[in-house]
Amino acid sequence: MFGKKKPTQRVYLDWAAATPLLSAAKIAMEPYLKEFFGNPSAVHAEGQTCRDAVDDARVMVSSAVQVQPEFITFTGGGTEGNNLAIFGVVESLKATGRTYESMTVVTTAIEHPSVGEACVALKRKGVQVQYVKVTETGKIDLEHLRALLDETVVLLTTALINSEIGTIQPARAIHKLLHEAEQKHGVQIMLHLDAAQAPLWVNCQLDALKADFVSLDAAKCCGPKGVGVLVRSRRTNIQAVVHGGGQESGLRPGTENVAGIVGAAIAIEWAQAGRQARAEQVVQVRDRSIEHMQSELPQVLINGLLPRQGLGRTGDDRVANNINISIPGLDTEFAAVVLDKQGFAVSTKSACSGAGGGASIVVLETTGDPARASSTLRITLGPDTTFEQLQSLTTVLKKHVEQMSQY
Amino acid sequence: MFGKKKPTQRVYLDWAAATPLLSAAKIAMEPYLKEFFGNPSAVHAEGQTCRDAVDDARVMVSSAVQVQPEFITFTGGGTEGNNLAIFGVVESLKATGRTYESMTVVTTAIEHPSVGEACVALKRKGVQVQYVKVTETGKIDLEHLRALLDETVVLLTTALINSEIGTIQPARAIHKLLHEAEQKHGVQIMLHLDAAQAPLWVNCQLDALKADFVSLDAAKCCGPKGVGVLVRSRRTNIQAVVHGGGQESGLRPGTENVAGIVGAAIAIEWAQAGRQARAEQVVQVRDRSIEHMQSELPQVLINGLLPRQGLGRTGDDRVANNINISIPGLDTEFAAVVLDKQGFAVSTKSACSGAGGGASIVVLETTGDPARASSTLRITLGPDTTFEQLQSLTTVLKKHVEQMSQY
Repeated sequence: MFGKKKPTQRVYLDWAAATPLLSAAKIAMEPYLKEFFGNPSAVHAEGQTCRDAVDDARVMVSSAVQVQPEFITFTGGGTEGNNLAIFGVVESLKATGRTYESMTVVTTAIEHPSVGEACVALKRKGVQVQYVKVTETGKIDLEHLRALLDETVVLLTTALINSEIGTIQPARAIHKLLHEAEQKHGVQIMLHLDAAQAPLWVNCQLDALKADFVSLDAAKCCGPKGVGVLVRSRRTNIQAVVHGGGQESGLRPGTENVAGIVGAAIAIEWAQAGRQARAEQVVQVRDRSIEHMQSELPQVLINGLLPRQGLGRTGDDRVANNINISIPGLDTEFAAVVLDKQGFAVSTKSACSGAGGGASIVVLETTGDPARASSTLRITLGPDTTFEQLQSLTTVLKKHVEQMSQY
Repeated sequence: MFGKKKPTQRVYLDWAAATPLLSAAKIAMEPYLKEFFGNPSAVHAEGQTCRDAVDDARVMVSSAVQVQPEFITFTGGGTEGNNLAIFGVVESLKATGRTYESMTVVTTAIEHPSVGEACVALKRKGVQVQYVKVTETGKIDLEHLRALLDETVVLLTTALINSEIGTIQPARAIHKLLHEAEQKHGVQIMLHLDAAQAPLWVNCQLDALKADFVSLDAAKCCGPKGVGVLVRSRRTNIQAVVHGGGQESGLRPGTENVAGIVGAAIAIEWAQAGRQARAEQVVQVRDRSIEHMQSELPQVLINGLLPRQGLGRTGDDRVANNINISIPGLDTEFAAVVLDKQGFAVSTKSACSGAGGGASIVVLETTGDPARASSTLRITLGPDTTFEQLQSLTTVLKKHVEQMSQY
């Protein structure tokens, strides 16, 4: 059971799907996996030691994203956090007597399934779901957004960073439009950003993003799997998705995953503290590698923003660690397997979109090109990824492309 | 941060609220917290190593509860599993066109909040919720149940073992009534048992319990916090509560908590394998301790089943490790704090019902006695709890009661 095949000589380039656990996080988790096992809701010493740990973790995360601790909710992961924000807003309005049919939620057609499928479920309830257009590089079309923002809109939900093509949405410009519409129609429009891909590379402070909700996933920033955080602003009002005890102010009932929460806090704080230096370093490796890849494999198409369009500095429009290419005509599902055999872990799209076949919805929506959408490779770098590693990957990929073209 | 005050000389008697992590579980989790961090949905070696671990864990749990692996869903805890079963049944019927108003869910008034609050939420949607009467010992009144089972009933949801007073419901007798009603009305009535308190002490096999859904919580049987299991029968049909990727057959989307799932599987297998011997041993300690407690403190009332009513053997009606007493007139919230200071960790009611004040709903509902309900102490034993430890607790408690009576 649990057969462990330790991979040797591996180059891990799937940081958008999963990240290694930070040593400091693991060390901090350790006591709560063993000696300190109390239920944080219990009044005795065993319980209170764990309550203190959860409280400390909450303060740590709240300080990293610059909100008061009471606006931090620990969840069971990024998916749950996204669901809590989206359904939370709609259901809390429903509870005030508003009908589903009178509410509109705006999103895009290129969301991660945890936002996309939540919106589909809303639609089944009767909520109006509007899909704002995105540009070829995956950015929200601001003119179209402005046109959609009528008095029925209660929420805009989108990924801050697209998990496949790495495009960073212009959160502040979006906020500005929402704010204008709020003023014009005398309504409140919540802005929810799924920031699962963000903590290692960009600022996740609520105020900096001008968001009402920011959801994080510890597993995507060197924390443990199974823990997420939903950060919310003072003006938010949400209802729980799962019902039970009063934990997490009633928003996420169930005994707290104390060790996981402690690990998540350490990881998120570390990720945010070092993000700028980390991004600056990785973006160099990334840009040089893209250039090299294009010179070796001229048929490579870059999905998302092109280097000169907005690479290079934190705050730019493509997350530092993302390369997403298409090689039209190539079976990239197979190419990913070949690369894996040669020691390179890459993916074709987001892990939650399914490991199996099928084109990338994100690339199809943004480019309208089915051949391009069914030949994607997502290569997501870590802080220590080197140009030489990506050079080797390009060599293996080039050889594979040449072999395939001989059939 | 994370200040750890190692309690010395402690007697931990709150096993219903939280349990220590089994060493074998911790050892098995270790590699998945560090070396093996891949996303199980990824096709590369890092992902597949983790996929194998989740698959192995699923086989292990499925064998412990005797179902096929595809009927095991890993969740984020017991609360989530209960919600998934309850809303899952109702929403899947809703999706076939049935109205909420046409469905009845039967439960009791003494459920854990993760069942009780889920039923309240159902009621808000328009579902009819019927509360079947319970006896003074917390057992479902079978005659009343029979009367409630009309053609609108779609689900009965209850705890297999009450988390406060330890009463074990007669699952097979309940099933028999449901089955009769199914035949009579030509309908399907699902039986959901919240078995969070069960794995260490009683058989959790789906067939033995004749249930359609059994939910478990790893943290309550020496597994890690933040992982649950929903076991279901072949005839079940449910919809997800949280929406996203296709993980866990779409029933629990989000990246799998690989380490947690591995730890949960080891713990559940171990808990079930040793349950009989464990229960036989603990019940001796428990019965002797109750007798001693009653002789030292004659004012003590036993909540739930009395020793002679059904103690002693696995399969009996009170879970082996549960003592729940009332000392009318005593502020037991304060007594729990006094006991804590003297080294004994006990609780007054279930942790999820809130650490703060308030009477026990369970004892109020079963006895109708407010004085009894507001003076409860729940003492839940572990496999290694000794009679001598409980003797000492009784001594401390007696001294405290005497001191209090002097004011």
